[in-house]
Amino acid sequence: MKYPVHLQRLIESFKRLPGVGNKTAERFAFQMLEWKEGHLKEFASLVEQVPMKLKTCEECGCLEGEEGCAFCLLKRQEAGSLCVTASLRDVFALEATREFHGIYHVLGGLLSPLEGLGPEALRLGNLKPRIRRYAVTELIIALDSTLEGDATALYIKNEMEGMPLRISRLAFGLPMGSSLDYVDGSTLARSFAGRGSF
Amino acid sequence: MKYPVHLQRLIESFKRLPGVGNKTAERFAFQMLEWKEGHLKEFASLVEQVPMKLKTCEECGCLEGEEGCAFCLLKRQEAGSLCVTASLRDVFALEATREFHGIYHVLGGLLSPLEGLGPEALRLGNLKPRIRRYAVTELIIALDSTLEGDATALYIKNEMEGMPLRISRLAFGLPMGSSLDYVDGSTLARSFAGRGSF
Repeated sequence: MKYPVHLQRLIESFKRLPGVGNKTAERFAFQMLEWKEGHLKEFASLVEQVPMKLKTCEECGCLEGEEGCAFCLLKRQEAGSLCVTASLRDVFALEATREFHGIYHVLGGLLSPLEGLGPEALRLGNLKPRIRRYAVTELIIALDSTLEGDATALYIKNEMEGMPLRISRLAFGLPMGSSLDYVDGSTLARSFAGRGSF
Repeated sequence: MKYPVHLQRLIESFKRLPGVGNKTAERFAFQMLEWKEGHLKEFASLVEQVPMKLKTCEECGCLEGEEGCAFCLLKRQEAGSLCVTASLRDVFALEATREFHGIYHVLGGLLSPLEGLGPEALRLGNLKPRIRRYAVTELIIALDSTLEGDATALYIKNEMEGMPLRISRLAFGLPMGSSLDYVDGSTLARSFAGRGSF
């Protein structure tokens, strides 16, 4: 007995979400059969309006709500610092720390030669112009501690050569609350090498 | 920095799915920002049309596609056996075993006095009439091995008193491929009590 066509298509759509396999998609789709019609309608219209209501800011790559780019509207340009992230989500994660008060620049990915993602695939074109325009003095590279993150960070560092900038990258070391027992070797090595006076 | 209103509403909608908390809903919503417009439109229309395209069969409680209820159309009434399940999903799971060739009756839930779900909340009204109409001789109760499942099974058994029916319930015991080490005590006890000659 196959699923009705409509249900099967719904399942296939759910499988586009990250980490959702067949089983989970089925669970979602079946549970959706029990949603109230109002909730279904609301969800459908929210999904459909995503491209219209949630655009990417041309300037900084952050999320642009109906009101315009919340970050560009904040007028934080005077802080003189710019933080480079790979994705939108990272911006919100950094904001939640309340440690940074400058402007962001979202690359929209990381360099990955294996996946054919070169510099032209990232929002790198207007990074230098923005740094100049806002007289940025500190560039913070907030990228993953992965091969792709390292490559991208290095690429950006090289690109900035000759500019009057302090360039920094997020610290690497033990995650807070972790036990040495459970930390992998390379993190431990990095954290040992980067030990600070106490 | 709060999320744009639209994004926040999308996240709230995702949280209606089973097992999806705030973190997962955020991950889904952010990833959806990268979907192609065509995929968003398709998904939105699938969701919106759920109430229209996927109805519950008034007769057996199974899923009714556009073509009508696939199960009622199968003309399996002559088999003389009826299987009672709690949910739609269970029907598809049982169908996948290819062990059963009769008709189904989906209750749409289980008795649960704690949640205020009494017999009137379940599709129980037309169970007896169906059994009579199709001259069912075997009633298979395929309900969970939980408190609610037990209560519902017992309720149905009592209701059927005096009818010329063989009533059975799914077997309880070790799941296939399991090691005694990992099986909980009550399963082991049940499986010991129900041991068969070998």
